[in-house]
Amino acid sequence: KSIAILAGDGIGPEVTKQAVKCLDAIAEVFNHKISYQEALIGAAAIDATGNPFPEATEEICKATDAILFGAIGHPKYDNDPTAKVRPEQGLLAMRKKLGLFANVRPVNSYEVLLPISPLKEEIIRGTDFVVFRELTGGIYFGEPRGRSEDGNIAFDSCVYTKHEIERIAHYAFKAAEKRRKKVTLVDKANVLATSRLWRETVTALAKQYPEIKLDFMFVDNAAMKIIQNPKHFDVVLTENMFGDIITDEASVISGSLGMLPSASLGTNQSLFEPIHGSYPEVAGQNKANPIGAILSAAMLLEYAFQWHEESNLIKKAVAKTLDEGFTTEDIFKENAKGTEEVGDKIAS
Amino acid sequence: KSIAILAGDGIGPEVTKQAVKCLDAIAEVFNHKISYQEALIGAAAIDATGNPFPEATEEICKATDAILFGAIGHPKYDNDPTAKVRPEQGLLAMRKKLGLFANVRPVNSYEVLLPISPLKEEIIRGTDFVVFRELTGGIYFGEPRGRSEDGNIAFDSCVYTKHEIERIAHYAFKAAEKRRKKVTLVDKANVLATSRLWRETVTALAKQYPEIKLDFMFVDNAAMKIIQNPKHFDVVLTENMFGDIITDEASVISGSLGMLPSASLGTNQSLFEPIHGSYPEVAGQNKANPIGAILSAAMLLEYAFQWHEESNLIKKAVAKTLDEGFTTEDIFKENAKGTEEVGDKIAS
Ligand SMILES: CC(C)[C@H](C(=O)O)[C@@H](O)C(=O)O
Ligand SMILES: CC(C)[C@H](C(=O)O)[C@@H](O)C(=O)O
Repeated sequence: KSIAILAGDGIGPEVTKQAVKCLDAIAEVFNHKISYQEALIGAAAIDATGNPFPEATEEICKATDAILFGAIGHPKYDNDPTAKVRPEQGLLAMRKKLGLFANVRPVNSYEVLLPISPLKEEIIRGTDFVVFRELTGGIYFGEPRGRSEDGNIAFDSCVYTKHEIERIAHYAFKAAEKRRKKVTLVDKANVLATSRLWRETVTALAKQYPEIKLDFMFVDNAAMKIIQNPKHFDVVLTENMFGDIITDEASVISGSLGMLPSASLGTNQSLFEPIHGSYPEVAGQNKANPIGAILSAAMLLEYAFQWHEESNLIKKAVAKTLDEGFTTEDIFKENAKGTEEVGDKIAS
Repeated sequence: KSIAILAGDGIGPEVTKQAVKCLDAIAEVFNHKISYQEALIGAAAIDATGNPFPEATEEICKATDAILFGAIGHPKYDNDPTAKVRPEQGLLAMRKKLGLFANVRPVNSYEVLLPISPLKEEIIRGTDFVVFRELTGGIYFGEPRGRSEDGNIAFDSCVYTKHEIERIAHYAFKAAEKRRKKVTLVDKANVLATSRLWRETVTALAKQYPEIKLDFMFVDNAAMKIIQNPKHFDVVLTENMFGDIITDEASVISGSLGMLPSASLGTNQSLFEPIHGSYPEVAGQNKANPIGAILSAAMLLEYAFQWHEESNLIKKAVAKTLDEGFTTEDIFKENAKGTEEVGDKIAS
């Protein structure tokens, strides 16, 4: 099996390195052969080629069996969102060009992390849901978008086709079949035409999954419920922009953004990345939490290779390390370990 | 002074009644004369006239000095978002026709409510911010919106003009001058053309307010920060859809949705409403929390009439009643009081 390694910017390289360590450990134990191909993306790619998602990277992504991605983003672009070329464009171009239409983000509580969550223990203990966010449609890509000639009017377009909704909805319902058999569609059908198409399409498609209970929630209400009662949710299905907001919101449940993995699935390729971003403040300091990247590698084994036992072994090693309190400073300040040490420990 | 009373649906009428009690008490103590004019809106208006915001109601709204609004929404429309006439349309039509472009929502922690918030006490104690949400633009009203002829494609448009951004930005900066002098613009300028116009326009306008510190936050990040560190915020300024989501999210901080008031300000008219909605499950049972409505009346006195002392007296009476633990069941289940009793107590 081959994996494209897109380490990217900020803490991307150092956390991705720990994930590769764990993949190597798995390969050894299970006698697999995994090869890696590194490629540029983000600010690093702009610096080297002027393009945040160079063609060479696209080629490598298409030629490998899965993609492990670190992070993109650099402070020099942050205060200049109107810069002609931005690292984020690389991310959006990659999603679109590789057809990665389904972003999957599990949200779990970890017993040992309960003390560091801003939420009360009794609220989050036992949380276990997964968000399916549509990733290549909606207001992120809809046309027309831009400015009037005099610059005084700006516009974006949110567009969805039935087909775009159906393909991710199938993923969400299939996931629900293996879980607690509930799908919650989050939309704003009392205001948006696109949301009404989502509701209509998903309602019709649900007939193919008679054991799954489908319910609906307006996005404003969902933004409350996720905090008030996260245990309410099993599988959450939603469009691109709403998914961006509620997945980041939901990440506070775990207590540390550094913990959370994600998968972006397409028809022909899939990508796995920690959700934490490039976190330039600690880049290169051996402080970043590698667990988000390592759990992304675990998702890769499960989703891209169907290596369930291998994937579970990584998850168990992470849980064990956490239980022992062997963590980076974002989790336990006292006696905090470095990125490398946590990576070594989990791999070993 | 004259006030239009739009009690609306569900618990709207019973909570609005308590707010009027408090206004009457204020009128008596301060020797003011306040007259009220009732008008229909929402499901109640559909039942009576077929229109959720009848012309007669619009007339009354335009002829009075301020509007006190209860709630709209009825379960019979909830599972049918595609119904031709819906209560929400009344709300949106009212906002648009009366030009209520600035929705103002204060978010505070109350010492006595700390135990019922899903967030930890140390996170929320001392929270005190206010959200300025643009209310008559963006994807709520942008054209074109609808369906392709074959029904397979749906689209919405998010449109903003410089003028729409400037007028609410001025309100937000003026509010910041009287507070801790910080404005946070929440947007998605790394993706949306409209957000880039917001950033550009607000950055330029900030020069007129040299004492105010302006910073920027992407909406996904803001959805996290509001929960992780709500004390970070002073004045939050944002567009319509993002504001819808983050204000509802922020409402969990107080512990009960039933507590929170809001103002919707325009050039010629202003409206005040609790944010809780029609809550049909308890309508007519003397169980609903009237404090959101009563604090909305306090906001009315402050914003519409500039009666600051009067407004503060209502807020003090609410705080005192809360401190005594004299509350409806959403706050303290044990020894819970009724809507009427809490209204009487605060008014007295
Ligand atoms: C960087 C940004 C364009 C991106 C998004 O909005 O999708 C990020 O927030 C994410 O969720 O992956
Ligand atoms: C009822 C709905 C149309 C409305 C909105 O989305 O603006 C509500 O959620 C609100 O925030 O007042």
